[in-house]
Amino acid sequence: MKSLVLERKDELSLRDFPIEKDEEVLGPRDVRIKLHTVGICGSDVHYYTHGRIGPFVVEAPMILGHEASGTVIETGSEVTTLKEGDRVCMEPGIPDPNSKATRLGMYNVDPAVRFWATPPVHGILRPTCVHPEAFTFKLPDAVSFAEAAMVEPLAVGVHAATKAKIKPGDIAVVLGAGPIGLVTALSALAGGCARVYVSDLSDKKLQIAQSLSPAIIAVNAAKETVGERVKADTDGWGADVLFEATGSPKAAAQIFEPLAPGGCVVLIGGQSEPISYDAGAAMVREARVENIFRYAHVFPRCVAMLASGAIDVKPLITRTFDFDESVKAFEIAASAPPADVKMQIELPQ
Amino acid sequence: MKSLVLERKDELSLRDFPIEKDEEVLGPRDVRIKLHTVGICGSDVHYYTHGRIGPFVVEAPMILGHEASGTVIETGSEVTTLKEGDRVCMEPGIPDPNSKATRLGMYNVDPAVRFWATPPVHGILRPTCVHPEAFTFKLPDAVSFAEAAMVEPLAVGVHAATKAKIKPGDIAVVLGAGPIGLVTALSALAGGCARVYVSDLSDKKLQIAQSLSPAIIAVNAAKETVGERVKADTDGWGADVLFEATGSPKAAAQIFEPLAPGGCVVLIGGQSEPISYDAGAAMVREARVENIFRYAHVFPRCVAMLASGAIDVKPLITRTFDFDESVKAFEIAASAPPADVKMQIELPQ
Amino acid sequence: MKSLVLERKDELSLRDFPIEKDEEVLGPRDVRIKLHTVGICGSDVHYYTHGRIGPFVVEAPMILGHEASGTVIETGSEVTTLKEGDRVCMEPGIPDPNSKATRLGMYNVDPAVRFWATPPVHGILRPTCVHPEAFTFKLPDAVSFAEAAMVEPLAVGVHAATKAKIKPGDIAVVLGAGPIGLVTALSALAGGCARVYVSDLSDKKLQIAQSLSPAIIAVNAAKETVGERVKADTDGWGADVLFEATGSPKAAAQIFEPLAPGGCVVLIGGQSEPISYDAGAAMVREARVENIFRYAHVFPRCVAMLASGAIDVKPLITRTFDFDESVKAFEIAASAPPADVKMQIELPQ
Amino acid sequence: MKSLVLERKDELSLRDFPIEKDEEVLGPRDVRIKLHTVGICGSDVHYYTHGRIGPFVVEAPMILGHEASGTVIETGSEVTTLKEGDRVCMEPGIPDPNSKATRLGMYNVDPAVRFWATPPVHGILRPTCVHPEAFTFKLPDAVSFAEAAMVEPLAVGVHAATKAKIKPGDIAVVLGAGPIGLVTALSALAGGCARVYVSDLSDKKLQIAQSLSPAIIAVNAAKETVGERVKADTDGWGADVLFEATGSPKAAAQIFEPLAPGGCVVLIGGQSEPISYDAGAAMVREARVENIFRYAHVFPRCVAMLASGAIDVKPLITRTFDFDESVKAFEIAASAPPADVKMQIELPQ
Repeated sequence: MKSLVLERKDELSLRDFPIEKDEEVLGPRDVRIKLHTVGICGSDVHYYTHGRIGPFVVEAPMILGHEASGTVIETGSEVTTLKEGDRVCMEPGIPDPNSKATRLGMYNVDPAVRFWATPPVHGILRPTCVHPEAFTFKLPDAVSFAEAAMVEPLAVGVHAATKAKIKPGDIAVVLGAGPIGLVTALSALAGGCARVYVSDLSDKKLQIAQSLSPAIIAVNAAKETVGERVKADTDGWGADVLFEATGSPKAAAQIFEPLAPGGCVVLIGGQSEPISYDAGAAMVREARVENIFRYAHVFPRCVAMLASGAIDVKPLITRTFDFDESVKAFEIAASAPPADVKMQIELPQ
Repeated sequence: MKSLVLERKDELSLRDFPIEKDEEVLGPRDVRIKLHTVGICGSDVHYYTHGRIGPFVVEAPMILGHEASGTVIETGSEVTTLKEGDRVCMEPGIPDPNSKATRLGMYNVDPAVRFWATPPVHGILRPTCVHPEAFTFKLPDAVSFAEAAMVEPLAVGVHAATKAKIKPGDIAVVLGAGPIGLVTALSALAGGCARVYVSDLSDKKLQIAQSLSPAIIAVNAAKETVGERVKADTDGWGADVLFEATGSPKAAAQIFEPLAPGGCVVLIGGQSEPISYDAGAAMVREARVENIFRYAHVFPRCVAMLASGAIDVKPLITRTFDFDESVKAFEIAASAPPADVKMQIELPQ
Repeated sequence: MKSLVLERKDELSLRDFPIEKDEEVLGPRDVRIKLHTVGICGSDVHYYTHGRIGPFVVEAPMILGHEASGTVIETGSEVTTLKEGDRVCMEPGIPDPNSKATRLGMYNVDPAVRFWATPPVHGILRPTCVHPEAFTFKLPDAVSFAEAAMVEPLAVGVHAATKAKIKPGDIAVVLGAGPIGLVTALSALAGGCARVYVSDLSDKKLQIAQSLSPAIIAVNAAKETVGERVKADTDGWGADVLFEATGSPKAAAQIFEPLAPGGCVVLIGGQSEPISYDAGAAMVREARVENIFRYAHVFPRCVAMLASGAIDVKPLITRTFDFDESVKAFEIAASAPPADVKMQIELPQ
Repeated sequence: MKSLVLERKDELSLRDFPIEKDEEVLGPRDVRIKLHTVGICGSDVHYYTHGRIGPFVVEAPMILGHEASGTVIETGSEVTTLKEGDRVCMEPGIPDPNSKATRLGMYNVDPAVRFWATPPVHGILRPTCVHPEAFTFKLPDAVSFAEAAMVEPLAVGVHAATKAKIKPGDIAVVLGAGPIGLVTALSALAGGCARVYVSDLSDKKLQIAQSLSPAIIAVNAAKETVGERVKADTDGWGADVLFEATGSPKAAAQIFEPLAPGGCVVLIGGQSEPISYDAGAAMVREARVENIFRYAHVFPRCVAMLASGAIDVKPLITRTFDFDESVKAFEIAASAPPADVKMQIELPQ
């Protein structure tokens, strides 16, 4: 099968790649899927440009890609909710169904999770894959393959919004207007916020943020402190929720300033080093801090919100490539600064 | 001051009515407000046609009206958040600030609450009133007086949606497409639901419901069981949240059928008699049931959601009368079945 | 294997009983257990005296018993947390690990659950059984086999206390001083309550309740209304939590009277018919009602609380029989009214 | 009135001290209290030895003391729950009843709180004081004046345990075995924990901790890592809750190591500088972090738990002084390291 293979750091090739037999065996509760659209994620690009993310090191050729939609082409003997021809999107991380974390409903923190395009697990920039029915979600007609391939990044935002326990009418702040910041802002609005202040240093990114909804207020952090802006707009009270989506230590050091008493901070952006945490500012507000890791249980929720119009991700899909252009697409994605929010690759059907 | 006075059951008059002195004294933390728009609520009409609601009996002439917006015309000496000329809406129930319930943040269940147009407390279908700053909320330019007078009924829906603890992407059912059912449907969508099934017996009401959002699905309960419809659409799983907004014992007896495992039922519609509760159906789902009473803390949230466009109540305001036509407006509102969702009265400015 | 077999309604025999082959096959994540102590539950007795519980009908001979402890005698190839010789207790209900309810952490409401001694699934009043590692819990030295066989009924109380979301210092009411009422009272105290009012009609049962802790206050419902008593003791405020553990429709009709504003009712006692629910009383308190079904995730918690002394169930074990006396034990248990709280059967070792 | 006056840093005197008139005026909802027992808190000692705590600077002579019990000797005209002769304890911080934070039920984070013995507000090491009924709590016979004067520090622990949302059977870790660490350990046990690991560097303090309950496990952090100990005891899973009660930056840097997936950290110990926060360790566990400030709503809960025996603070009261010995008592308290947990001063009756 022709696949997009990361041979090693800085070297991609589009070539036939043999997948190990047992990955292709269709279990009784599995489905076989023909891939249609795959989004390019920052982590895919990071493996390409750095050869590793934290403890995960690319030590052998690995197929990239984990944001995907496709069509069911074969079903296992015990599959009941899907059938051949169903259009679907797929959750890329598969936990051990019998682990303690999974049984408790927190499968995302199960250490046994196998996640696409995370060494040594292959991704899905390839023609077909086998996946468990339980992590494969049927698409209604109203959701296109391109939107469906956005479910994976959107799931991060929706999970963050869920963990925040937003109350209807909350005021939120999102630090960072990158792809994750933007899906978080959309999720916060769909999840009940009255309005969302999005802060970033890039006017270009802020313009995109602003264009998504009149309930989004763009704040250029180089010109204005988001905390002061929010307080000015709320009689000094502050924001009910703040989402940190930059991953920048500098931003992390100031997460409590915009926050109202009793407010919640959700840390989304992974931080490679310990951050400076203003315990005094957190204390006087009795802040709650939620630390999140990927997502759990939100894929079908994302699909339902895309189908009903509660969330619209189409403006975030800024460029689409043919599978044959995959290497070029990654080169463009790796060249900073990206003028695009989300690039996608379409596989031949 | 010329006021709309319920003299006794079935008798309204628009006449000069002297308010007791101490109700007109401006305390240091009070504001004086010139009324602008007042909505007609089902409870106002019920006092008119029945002379009582449960234990609350009209035993002396009483001014009606409790859904109101207006303009601040005088401020007490310690008022800091409002000034003369501010456009505002007002929360009609004032608790004892030192009661245990209030201190715990549940002022709506404080038995000492004094609520407009609930005997023996007068309503505000009159030129001016005095109100505490803490329960008077400034309107941004984007919110009209008419929309602001909708905040009171909307608050019931937003409070219900808050108590439900909606998670982004939830599927909801609202039983009843009357004014409260409709604001609840809007609140459920704004509060995070992917879609809301609204069930009623009246096609006319369902048409209005359906027109509010493509994420609303109207179900005529005379033709289709909402539980079966929801289950058909969710692979048999059911709805995450059900709002009972009919007040009908028959509807109340079937609240668990549409509900998913772990789902939540919110009882909004007041019931005058004990209802039949299917404990077995509740048990196998481990249902949570929230019983709500009016609202608390949601007025500023409603204002923020109207201002940002997260909720649009304008389609619900179907008819507006001059103050001089108040008696006629009530006669129309009292004649069943109402072809209108919400009627409002505008006071002379 | 000699087993206690319910041949049909009203007929028990202790006899050799062949278990189907596939139930005895040790899977890679299973353990084989030699049973030590088995408690007699009201449901076991009910199958004996009535031949059915709701939709579950005894249509073929069935081994009884589901409250059990024992010793691991063999382990599957992938078992990591248990080894031969480990003393254990076992959770009697096994869900489908891949169902939606299980994945969400609510495996107790998975319709696919197979539960011991619930037709057509056999119980464990027999020498050995095979059970999944994930539902088998190691006992520390401080917990005896007899206490361990109490974990199953205790789990109902601990699950109820968990769902109530008790806050430290809460005042609770338990309606009913039967075995489930008593474990619930102990769980409520261990779970944070300052004191627990236990209400029943039997002075004998109330004496047992009272003897369990000085923080338990026994109230004879024939002489005193528990709601009035609680209110007298709390300046009229009421109880924070009420557990309904009688299953009596009469008790269920009065669950809100003792309840404080914002309080929670937990319905534990199964009700065979719809109950009368005082929606008005629930509304003015904004009561939360939790409906529970068995338990989930609490077995290891119960074991830890028994080991540390946080809960002591020994006073509830009032009588122990040899396995050879099993039929007699059930006859005694079936003769009303029981003078005992919990009877247990010890299997030969 | 003879009072214990902090004249300035390092200088205490027991002398007549005139209180401003308006502090002695009995409002309609106030009570006048004759003080009985006052505990010495670390903050009292800190003002004595340093003249300030953060932004609060002693700029004029100030009466010390805020952990107090006494007897009502006069009641305001609208007081309904207390009468002359009632034995009481008092909450030392009084918020603005009309502030937004108070109305929301979070009066402890109201910036307008006036707190005893926090400049410029006087404390209560003096014969009498005037206090609001709403923050004065009647003592049952079972609670002594000495225990009642422990309610204030206990409230910190109970508030921390409340915010943690302990589930019955949780495993907790408390970092620090000082007075706050000990009341937190007791609160965690009373609040539902199966067992609590208390970590400290002082064997003497750990002995006291260990003596409080068999469910407390003392860990000397100089000899053993508490995280490793907990994991060894929980099959590698970790603690459900960790309370940081040292205020030490070094301890704060390691709060996530002992924590289980989905666990909660409660930061109690105030930190004067930003702490190092291991965001990666927090992320992979999806940790929740609660930052707390004093307490709210827990005084009557503490009184109820002391009365029922759910919590016993008597072992923590290690030394009692007459009021005439107050200066000496503070000198002893200020001499490090303290061999005592809690010292109290009894006023003449």
